[in-house]
Amino acid sequence: MTDGSPTSDSEQGDNWLHPPPHAVRAAVTAAVAEDLTPLGDLTAALLPSKRSEARIVARAAGRMAGSRCVTESFAQIDPAVSVRWNVREGSALEPGTELAVVSGPLRSIVTAERTALNFLGHLSGVATLTARFVDAAGAAGTARIWDTRKTTPGLRSLEKAAVRAGGGRNHRGNLSDWMLVKDNHLDGMSISAAVERARDLWPGRTVHVECDTVDQCAEAVRAGADALLLDNMDPATVRECVELAERGTTGRRPLLEVSGGVELDSVGAYSACGVDQISVGAITNSAPVLDVGLDI
Amino acid sequence: MTDGSPTSDSEQGDNWLHPPPHAVRAAVTAAVAEDLTPLGDLTAALLPSKRSEARIVARAAGRMAGSRCVTESFAQIDPAVSVRWNVREGSALEPGTELAVVSGPLRSIVTAERTALNFLGHLSGVATLTARFVDAAGAAGTARIWDTRKTTPGLRSLEKAAVRAGGGRNHRGNLSDWMLVKDNHLDGMSISAAVERARDLWPGRTVHVECDTVDQCAEAVRAGADALLLDNMDPATVRECVELAERGTTGRRPLLEVSGGVELDSVGAYSACGVDQISVGAITNSAPVLDVGLDI
Amino acid sequence: MTDGSPTSDSEQGDNWLHPPPHAVRAAVTAAVAEDLTPLGDLTAALLPSKRSEARIVARAAGRMAGSRCVTESFAQIDPAVSVRWNVREGSALEPGTELAVVSGPLRSIVTAERTALNFLGHLSGVATLTARFVDAAGAAGTARIWDTRKTTPGLRSLEKAAVRAGGGRNHRGNLSDWMLVKDNHLDGMSISAAVERARDLWPGRTVHVECDTVDQCAEAVRAGADALLLDNMDPATVRECVELAERGTTGRRPLLEVSGGVELDSVGAYSACGVDQISVGAITNSAPVLDVGLDI
Amino acid sequence: MTDGSPTSDSEQGDNWLHPPPHAVRAAVTAAVAEDLTPLGDLTAALLPSKRSEARIVARAAGRMAGSRCVTESFAQIDPAVSVRWNVREGSALEPGTELAVVSGPLRSIVTAERTALNFLGHLSGVATLTARFVDAAGAAGTARIWDTRKTTPGLRSLEKAAVRAGGGRNHRGNLSDWMLVKDNHLDGMSISAAVERARDLWPGRTVHVECDTVDQCAEAVRAGADALLLDNMDPATVRECVELAERGTTGRRPLLEVSGGVELDSVGAYSACGVDQISVGAITNSAPVLDVGLDI
Amino acid sequence: MTDGSPTSDSEQGDNWLHPPPHAVRAAVTAAVAEDLTPLGDLTAALLPSKRSEARIVARAAGRMAGSRCVTESFAQIDPAVSVRWNVREGSALEPGTELAVVSGPLRSIVTAERTALNFLGHLSGVATLTARFVDAAGAAGTARIWDTRKTTPGLRSLEKAAVRAGGGRNHRGNLSDWMLVKDNHLDGMSISAAVERARDLWPGRTVHVECDTVDQCAEAVRAGADALLLDNMDPATVRECVELAERGTTGRRPLLEVSGGVELDSVGAYSACGVDQISVGAITNSAPVLDVGLDI
Amino acid sequence: MTDGSPTSDSEQGDNWLHPPPHAVRAAVTAAVAEDLTPLGDLTAALLPSKRSEARIVARAAGRMAGSRCVTESFAQIDPAVSVRWNVREGSALEPGTELAVVSGPLRSIVTAERTALNFLGHLSGVATLTARFVDAAGAAGTARIWDTRKTTPGLRSLEKAAVRAGGGRNHRGNLSDWMLVKDNHLDGMSISAAVERARDLWPGRTVHVECDTVDQCAEAVRAGADALLLDNMDPATVRECVELAERGTTGRRPLLEVSGGVELDSVGAYSACGVDQISVGAITNSAPVLDVGLDI
Repeated sequence: MTDGSPTSDSEQGDNWLHPPPHAVRAAVTAAVAEDLTPLGDLTAALLPSKRSEARIVARAAGRMAGSRCVTESFAQIDPAVSVRWNVREGSALEPGTELAVVSGPLRSIVTAERTALNFLGHLSGVATLTARFVDAAGAAGTARIWDTRKTTPGLRSLEKAAVRAGGGRNHRGNLSDWMLVKDNHLDGMSISAAVERARDLWPGRTVHVECDTVDQCAEAVRAGADALLLDNMDPATVRECVELAERGTTGRRPLLEVSGGVELDSVGAYSACGVDQISVGAITNSAPVLDVGLDI
Repeated sequence: MTDGSPTSDSEQGDNWLHPPPHAVRAAVTAAVAEDLTPLGDLTAALLPSKRSEARIVARAAGRMAGSRCVTESFAQIDPAVSVRWNVREGSALEPGTELAVVSGPLRSIVTAERTALNFLGHLSGVATLTARFVDAAGAAGTARIWDTRKTTPGLRSLEKAAVRAGGGRNHRGNLSDWMLVKDNHLDGMSISAAVERARDLWPGRTVHVECDTVDQCAEAVRAGADALLLDNMDPATVRECVELAERGTTGRRPLLEVSGGVELDSVGAYSACGVDQISVGAITNSAPVLDVGLDI
Repeated sequence: MTDGSPTSDSEQGDNWLHPPPHAVRAAVTAAVAEDLTPLGDLTAALLPSKRSEARIVARAAGRMAGSRCVTESFAQIDPAVSVRWNVREGSALEPGTELAVVSGPLRSIVTAERTALNFLGHLSGVATLTARFVDAAGAAGTARIWDTRKTTPGLRSLEKAAVRAGGGRNHRGNLSDWMLVKDNHLDGMSISAAVERARDLWPGRTVHVECDTVDQCAEAVRAGADALLLDNMDPATVRECVELAERGTTGRRPLLEVSGGVELDSVGAYSACGVDQISVGAITNSAPVLDVGLDI
Repeated sequence: MTDGSPTSDSEQGDNWLHPPPHAVRAAVTAAVAEDLTPLGDLTAALLPSKRSEARIVARAAGRMAGSRCVTESFAQIDPAVSVRWNVREGSALEPGTELAVVSGPLRSIVTAERTALNFLGHLSGVATLTARFVDAAGAAGTARIWDTRKTTPGLRSLEKAAVRAGGGRNHRGNLSDWMLVKDNHLDGMSISAAVERARDLWPGRTVHVECDTVDQCAEAVRAGADALLLDNMDPATVRECVELAERGTTGRRPLLEVSGGVELDSVGAYSACGVDQISVGAITNSAPVLDVGLDI
Repeated sequence: MTDGSPTSDSEQGDNWLHPPPHAVRAAVTAAVAEDLTPLGDLTAALLPSKRSEARIVARAAGRMAGSRCVTESFAQIDPAVSVRWNVREGSALEPGTELAVVSGPLRSIVTAERTALNFLGHLSGVATLTARFVDAAGAAGTARIWDTRKTTPGLRSLEKAAVRAGGGRNHRGNLSDWMLVKDNHLDGMSISAAVERARDLWPGRTVHVECDTVDQCAEAVRAGADALLLDNMDPATVRECVELAERGTTGRRPLLEVSGGVELDSVGAYSACGVDQISVGAITNSAPVLDVGLDI
Repeated sequence: MTDGSPTSDSEQGDNWLHPPPHAVRAAVTAAVAEDLTPLGDLTAALLPSKRSEARIVARAAGRMAGSRCVTESFAQIDPAVSVRWNVREGSALEPGTELAVVSGPLRSIVTAERTALNFLGHLSGVATLTARFVDAAGAAGTARIWDTRKTTPGLRSLEKAAVRAGGGRNHRGNLSDWMLVKDNHLDGMSISAAVERARDLWPGRTVHVECDTVDQCAEAVRAGADALLLDNMDPATVRECVELAERGTTGRRPLLEVSGGVELDSVGAYSACGVDQISVGAITNSAPVLDVGLDI
């Protein structure tokens, strides 16, 4: 289960949980620069030149995400450091789980430690909170957990991968991905006109319509939207929309997404309504860090 | 109180609360690219060409941080958009507070909205959590709240500025700033030897020593360290260290920092011990987003 | 119809024909650097310091694309140069059409000329060839022209915008956009299994299936694919697939795309088959430049 | 004939046909980012983790260029992929020629395929069209084929190398290379005065003068220009200029370049006139892609 | 003589003394980042918010270079700062000469001061030392002073422009500019064969040959080299080479360059030999800073 | 003593003399681009494909700095080139000392030579001049030599490391490091007020106060400044300040720095005064290059 190179795709099965390699490189480059400019690690100068081995260990239960950022962080500080992973991206962690063994020059390990752990802690935090929502939704129904575009600036690719590592799925990646028609976009147009225009301008792409009311939902279903975002509705109203969408559709029913202020204690109630997705901004923009440490 | 340009330093008094201009530009450049690559905002194509005005509004109570990132986000999407701020960086917000007015082409406002709000929500989240710790510490004693290097990768400069906006202070900015001697750095050396070597290699810089015990604290005081990090101690032990440091010093007492797992309900107890700083990783790596919205 | 700033979104109606602003800035930055490193424009040193006015003129018939790259090119060389456009992105051009007036320091105009024209000529070439395919397809049927991912490296966003300016539509923007399941992806899986797995992993996204035979087409329709790429089929076979898809679907018929070696003289025959899209790699990777010049 | 590393200079003899290594890295970095932002390759998630081998094969006759971009593309996606070249940069290709063998994780090969082929197809297209002009010019005379600055923005270094791979030669690389005095540069000065001033400002550099008439040509020869660009002349006029230049020069005759609208069916007539160079913008800005594929 | 924008080309006559605009932007971006990462200017936080005016003043005699870097430095720190130049690029300075007036927010002026002065001092130092060599060479003969590729890494474009500002001329800008055939390049080939091959591979470019002896000089003249680098010869030998080159050439004599350890007290003797150029690495890699200050 | 990788930290003891790895990579990337854009090394095309070995040799006495930039320069041009160091960073060099052996493809060695030597010559020049000041100060007293922020733009990290290699120490790395309160910062405030405010805003950081007079010095001592910059004082006045500071302090005496126009012949006199540091801008902004060469 070694991962010979920072961005190698040689491991089994979990590849789609990782962010694309260029995003890993760019994020680590920025993080290394902000921690070492201009003079590097002053305190490491106290250390003798010797090789050492360190263990990355979970201090709390959760899900692991960010392993490639860790490997890349050590590699950018010193290519002579190698990281051997004992645990796969997306794995469940317990306090004490040894995630990886880091070997190489002691000074380089110490210098890269915080950068590597900041990635691992943050992204595992995202995966962990995602997994909690996934579990809560799964216990009560069949809805999937979706992320949103409410991500930390600069970390979109990494956080969306961490959501996958936590068992969630990715809403559109960005504004260029598919169309999400909101109130502001209608500006006097009917939903039908908007959907028609969307299919004309961007054929082949998902047309997703935000609905604030059951009436809007009915209109969006009639307009043939591919997906509906049911915004800030209570479970009863959501259930009404689900029924309406099932009745109103020949062929594949539009995807139904619940969105807006869903929390861990309410996600089950929504999941039980029969919707496909529940999107939660908090899993990317409010996930507390997962406590991980490096034992030298 | 207008802020004519994304990075202009013309406002009163609050300049030191902002991040340096190059960090704002770089972070926004990355955020815009990740949201618009490769095709731009598909849905905005539905909109007519017209000018509009929007308001940035707080939906929850907290502290504002990130205003320059907001202005820069709109400017990078379209220089024809202007942002007029009603509220200064670091101000307290109530639900409904109107932070700023955004004017310009409607499509550009809609396209930039999420990028701008992601910065504002995240950084105000940091400022808000900081302010809660500051208030709790201030109610019980005189300790300042310090951040750590446990920041979100790529956002170090922005989050450290948000901490200042929340009333906190900045621990060292990065590894190049000052020396923080931890267990791993001693590697057989005494604390005295380490401090001496630190002063030899990097004269003029703060020498900060991590102490796990009262004995180490005593040794660090004798060694003439400028600052002591009291790691994972209970309030009683911290109090002992404070007394020891006061007794043991001629001239200026070393700065005393409490660190390790301090939470909102325990920060007061530590602040009451007479230490100078309490550092809290959570304010940068676990702050939930502050809810802010854009009303068009 | 002035475009005050290189990337301003203030014009009427044609905004969605433009590439996203960050892509314009990045492409121009690279182009300016490759033309001026290390010493700048040697020959311009012969010129006196004076202001001048120049006209960008079409020397051949076609469609205009790339206006924002032109404006940005002059701006990066010298912000004192301004460009006033007489013609909108996507307009039809005749030999002699005056596209824009450029005013500013003569030396800066001369220095930026080739960079600006390289963008304009290349992107208008893409738009022009697209328009020819669009016209030929439109004369014989209702199929839209789609681009592909066969774009010039580094110019994806710009060329895809030029396709829109030529009246075409954009296939997926990149690998992150939607799924296109090809032979290589099946690797032993049935099409149904692949579609099912695709919907599981990436719910909400278009699932597009490449079909080499009528049988595969039938399987893809049964599997509920959103779109079918009919690869390298003759018009008769395509027609068979269209009928099959129409018969086989309740609800919205999957989008049908013809792909593979379609040329100007064959595109009409395919368009007449009733498919939705015909994708043509040549419009982005083999479009000859449109001849445009700068008259000072 | 292996090329162990993306940018290694270990092969025999053909090194000068390659672009400089930093240009290869930068172009591939941009191309990978535009194809994988923000989520990476969605469809590749369907694939199992296994190693595979693929062959890059020519589907049409032509000249190969761009091999280092191919190797670098695979390496940036996954350093575990290796590329072994059977054919050297600049080689003639027939339909079916196997250019290279690609080995590594199947998913990484599939993900990098289009990026790699876009480089190879475009640059081989440039080399192929160049070779056709070179052959046509060589059959009728001794003129060399030169490229121009009419290159695709961002790909200057790569396309100029592809011209060399096609047997052409490079005109000045950019504005910083040598002086090309055009009508716009004279602005009232005589050609002699311009040449004199050019030699004064930039001694040691080629002074190249654009001539629209025989008279200008005579003046440029008298002025001691190093090279003459004979612009848009018919072959008879060109021949007159050649004689004039030979008569008018003691020492080395100035280099004579024909430029302006030369096509494949007219290049021989110009080559027969005795000029040194014929420059053709079309070889870089209007070369259709060479059809190359990847067989897995 | 105002320079309204950091990179505008609106001033009279001195434009060719400036570096290309992209090089100015890139160098200033790097310099600002290294001085302000991660927290910005700590000490400026002590200052009140008020506008101020400052003067850039020479503290020693010399030549000014780097004005655009100064303007760009202030602009990148704060676009609200403006710089009005009293003195043109390349002007002679006396102690006390007021070069420019800087107006804007006091804190921004103080923050940008050192970055701006580092550019101005270094580049004016290059211009000043160049001017001293130019004067010494001009007093004794007609040789021009040339720079070399021995420049400070990252500042090639800026230092070569400063050489022009000091009255010198630019040797080739980089390895891509023209050919300089040294001993290492011959590797068994004769000079004639090398020149012939150079003209074959890179027609139109200057072929420059390094000569260590009079015999090599004779061979290079016979081979038709465009320029000769007379390496480490004493003035008498140089004079012999000059005569040889004049006798041996029909048409334009090759350019003759003296190179190797020429210093201020020997440059006159070489200039008197009748060579065209004397190249001096020291003007770019060993020029002491010119003392300039900012008076607020 | 091999250094297997461009940025590996595997050597003994001298690690803290090197710049941080990201700074090395960034500086070399810029230097390679400026020397090879757009066409690469024209002259290297004359060379056969063969491997070679070259030696980097000192041509003058001095101190070595910049080894990692050299290794990185060769690696960026061609990873097949390897560099084996015989001499450690910071070592004393004599004319003829062989610093390193470079092996690999001849053309790549020749292409990278000047870039590598420009780094080595400049940074060793900085180290060498530093060492001369260190020796002169050490012969007369105990003062350390400090650099300043008067560094070459873009090379801050590299030059500050070279100062360490020369036996000097680093003043603050940049504006974000610690506070240096100058006249301009006081703006009506007393030194005491400024120090107090500084400690309030940035607790834990060194507060350094510039003093032009003995009175200011006394005030700064009373204010509890951590360090005093004695600006432009003669040795007698400096001595007075030293006595004053020693008398006026309980606990650790503030660090005393002499600054302003100190030269090699005056540094001893200041060192004899009992100050801790003497800062010299000339060691970074006016150090002549150390003559180093590459023998192939």
